[in-house]
Amino acid sequence: MKIDVLTLFPDMFSAVMSESMMWKARERALLDFHVHDIRDHAGNKQRKVDDSPYGGGGGMILKPDVLARAIEAVRSDGDTPVILLSPQGRVLTHQVAAELSRQPHLILVCGRYEGVDERARLLAISDEISIGDYVLTGGELAALVLIDAVVRLIPGVLGADGAQDRDSHADGLLEGPHYTRPPEFRGLGVPEVLTSGHHAEVARWRRQQSLKRTFERRPELLETAPLSEEDHAYLAQLEDGAGD
Amino acid sequence: MKIDVLTLFPDMFSAVMSESMMWKARERALLDFHVHDIRDHAGNKQRKVDDSPYGGGGGMILKPDVLARAIEAVRSDGDTPVILLSPQGRVLTHQVAAELSRQPHLILVCGRYEGVDERARLLAISDEISIGDYVLTGGELAALVLIDAVVRLIPGVLGADGAQDRDSHADGLLEGPHYTRPPEFRGLGVPEVLTSGHHAEVARWRRQQSLKRTFERRPELLETAPLSEEDHAYLAQLEDGAGD
Repeated sequence: MKIDVLTLFPDMFSAVMSESMMWKARERALLDFHVHDIRDHAGNKQRKVDDSPYGGGGGMILKPDVLARAIEAVRSDGDTPVILLSPQGRVLTHQVAAELSRQPHLILVCGRYEGVDERARLLAISDEISIGDYVLTGGELAALVLIDAVVRLIPGVLGADGAQDRDSHADGLLEGPHYTRPPEFRGLGVPEVLTSGHHAEVARWRRQQSLKRTFERRPELLETAPLSEEDHAYLAQLEDGAGD
Repeated sequence: MKIDVLTLFPDMFSAVMSESMMWKARERALLDFHVHDIRDHAGNKQRKVDDSPYGGGGGMILKPDVLARAIEAVRSDGDTPVILLSPQGRVLTHQVAAELSRQPHLILVCGRYEGVDERARLLAISDEISIGDYVLTGGELAALVLIDAVVRLIPGVLGADGAQDRDSHADGLLEGPHYTRPPEFRGLGVPEVLTSGHHAEVARWRRQQSLKRTFERRPELLETAPLSEEDHAYLAQLEDGAGD
């Protein structure tokens, strides 16, 4: 996958992009990543890229001509998604990340988070994504989050062990608890089933713990998660106050 | 506000924390920010902090003793929130960010995103926050997002102009469109009201555009946003297919 990022703050990407997973993805030629400074397309000596909003009010708005030029410089064909990171976009979920991970090329646009001229948005942006219902100073952190969530779903990036299939949200549920050594920590032990060696029992326990955690913390996720008859039976027990 | 971050990847914080807003917040003594390497609390020469999970399966789990020691080294009193960034946590929203922005001290724990021993979670973590329904490689990006969303709400950080009150989500709605120079761009102009000089008309138009965008993109937000009678009247027009 090729990812081009357009930003006013290219330095924000350096430390994170040299992080282990990103580095592996690039070394294995699974990720071709480029950061571009929007300021290079300012078209004036002062490298001015924003201006005050029509109608008054504070904040600065990224100019439409500058942004359109910056996008056109990296857009090779009209099918490439040009994604603006914005609190007004559709909300990023595991499913959206999976959909994007199948694209050959993504262009990510980091505006000042609230301030992109509407005409650039209409003419040069094909998708808008929000990473959640909160506001960030710029789109850069949102782009980094989107890149991380997407790149780890590209086949081969995390290796062959399928770790991403066990993730929270991959099956529509939260993951259950994990335990590692020592066997006892400050008076708390490890559930016996995990040291039993019965793989089927361990799998069943983990599924139940995952259902239980989702039931307790995010019950609305159960409405859309794919559930088996056994899952439904266990959830019915939880609703009756049993099921531990 | 004091923020302590516990992480296995301290370098991921350097570039972002020198970004403009963070830098201003620190210079104005509104933010006292420290990054701590969990590995310093490994308690063994190999600096080993994780181990394989009981019950098998891939992935590595952060050891409970190491994490508890790392937290206890920065926790000055029992009231300080110790927040684990985790896809299983409560979901970050503008309201959660506002609530956290009133705390004098936050401790943020970045585990490998899915792998923290359950006993450390029970004994040493007081809150879990997820930045959205997707999975990240580590909690670091989630912590950076939380810090950005929270710090910009600390009074004085963004200056006196109250920019944060106009944000998407601050009033429960999405922001409407913005325009800046040039007045015409590729055949598209600027809505006349914005150049009219009538402040009350501009304010009314902006409110309506904000309602319209929310209605079109995230109608579920209208169920919880505080709305006036005039807002309701305008939304009724939108439902009838008018209101432009």
